[in-house]
Amino acid sequence: MFRKEIKVTDCTLRDGGLINKWQFSHEMVRKVFLALNQAGVDYMELGYRASKKMFSPQEYGPWRFTVDEDVLRIIQDTPVNMKLGVMVDIGRVEEDDIAPCADSPLDFFRVATCLHDIDKAIALANHIDAKGYESFINIMAISTASEFELCEALRQIEAETNVVAVNIVDSFGFLYSENVHHLVKLFRENLAAKSTGMHAHNNQQLAFANTIEAIRKGANYLDGTVSGIGRGAGNCPLELLLSFLKNPKFCLEPVLQLIEDVFIDLRREIEWGYLIPYMITGILNEHPRTAIALRQDPKNRDKYAEFYRTMTTPECFSEE
Amino acid sequence: MFRKEIKVTDCTLRDGGLINKWQFSHEMVRKVFLALNQAGVDYMELGYRASKKMFSPQEYGPWRFTVDEDVLRIIQDTPVNMKLGVMVDIGRVEEDDIAPCADSPLDFFRVATCLHDIDKAIALANHIDAKGYESFINIMAISTASEFELCEALRQIEAETNVVAVNIVDSFGFLYSENVHHLVKLFRENLAAKSTGMHAHNNQQLAFANTIEAIRKGANYLDGTVSGIGRGAGNCPLELLLSFLKNPKFCLEPVLQLIEDVFIDLRREIEWGYLIPYMITGILNEHPRTAIALRQDPKNRDKYAEFYRTMTTPECFSEE
Repeated sequence: MFRKEIKVTDCTLRDGGLINKWQFSHEMVRKVFLALNQAGVDYMELGYRASKKMFSPQEYGPWRFTVDEDVLRIIQDTPVNMKLGVMVDIGRVEEDDIAPCADSPLDFFRVATCLHDIDKAIALANHIDAKGYESFINIMAISTASEFELCEALRQIEAETNVVAVNIVDSFGFLYSENVHHLVKLFRENLAAKSTGMHAHNNQQLAFANTIEAIRKGANYLDGTVSGIGRGAGNCPLELLLSFLKNPKFCLEPVLQLIEDVFIDLRREIEWGYLIPYMITGILNEHPRTAIALRQDPKNRDKYAEFYRTMTTPECFSEE
Repeated sequence: MFRKEIKVTDCTLRDGGLINKWQFSHEMVRKVFLALNQAGVDYMELGYRASKKMFSPQEYGPWRFTVDEDVLRIIQDTPVNMKLGVMVDIGRVEEDDIAPCADSPLDFFRVATCLHDIDKAIALANHIDAKGYESFINIMAISTASEFELCEALRQIEAETNVVAVNIVDSFGFLYSENVHHLVKLFRENLAAKSTGMHAHNNQQLAFANTIEAIRKGANYLDGTVSGIGRGAGNCPLELLLSFLKNPKFCLEPVLQLIEDVFIDLRREIEWGYLIPYMITGILNEHPRTAIALRQDPKNRDKYAEFYRTMTTPECFSEE
């Protein structure tokens, strides 16, 4: 038996691009698009929308910007069965970067925000909504949020926006199942007219498990990525999520074929997934940036015990 | 706050040896022993005890047999802070292979059994108990067990043995959290005087998550392996489990040092962990043997989509 309200969002290119500055080939992006379209995924997040005044197109690939023309080059003549969209960071996009929905191949925008920027996130979500798109808000680093401020923000989103859903983002991969249960409960109590979503990270091999726990408690918007690709420890593997969900419209085989054709080789070029340094930042409720830096340092990348000692010395805490 | 009844069993060498026929060097085994001893692990399962009449010592390494003399060579003069033991399969050990506990460095034996061999398992557990060891029963392939027969077996174990705990073994890596909750409930209802344990496999990246769910519902005997090593998709990573448990006696650093010193290189030599073929057998509630055979076939090891099609054709089911 399946819950028809459940919607799956794939963030393969958006989150995966954080590893390689969105340097994906046109051919690869087209393959991902076709496989997800066939697999029955509801929402595909193609990349970030960011201003070319703020990021150099020499340094970053096209899915850092995800302009409408590039999206059209991916779609070609293929009938699109899913909604297409992008993520926006506050302060990294200008209002002119977003055309009216009627003139764009995109259907949705997700606004990524920290809790302290919630007023800016609401303004941006409302701007997106006014242009005719579905809007979402993703609350990042939720494991460090004060519950009092989180509930206030949720009530404000409920009252002041038309967002479809607000997503719990476990940026640090810190949450255990009971934390997820508690957060989904808070979201549902304070967001009666909006849906709750879950974007989990895999620092403790709990991204898929925490997504299941969010579903059990009533979350209906679920993020996954092919082969769990994503910065650091990566995300909830889409293949596991589709196999768990019982809606017969989901089809696993195109995703497995895509992993075979694209992601086995890609994993040899760029690194993601469960590794001890990411586990360490996860259990310490820290941003993975220190672990990412360690993995990029050829001399020290495998010095797990020393990294753990450094991250847990009192000096390290008192610097925070 | 921690639950003092919780005991952690490490099965690194026993389950990991299923990959390489227990061909671990003396030096490596000694390093694992020292790290676990320092980490505060409660039980260390060194290997299988099996009869040398049934398995060739030319083909299999010493931890297929785990004779007392080899155990003593590992301990040397080190004070042992944990209980040491082995696993036995029904029919693969003779009564003479087990010395009285007073003459052995071992403290416990775990009897692995399928549900239909439960009478033999009880007899063997009682034989072990009579020799003075702690005895355990591990019920394998539990995701294929009939609930009626499982409850009957549990009541029989409760009435007829002195086992310390009975372990839920998710051999196929099939269980989701709600299945785990249900099984732990059945175990606790039918085994009031024994403890419940959990041995999870990682086919769906749920080994650690399912171990947490078992804890939440009252299981106190928990299996892990260093870096999740184990046949196929492997097991619950000990490093994640120790970090989750709040008992201050557990120390993570020796395990991280061991991973750095031994397991990074070992993973380049032998394969374990989450891979699509193991995910496929997991979601289909099948033994991983077909996936293991695929991974050993150089021509087809990465043909995920074809493997999925083969495993899900009606012909494949009707052969069962």
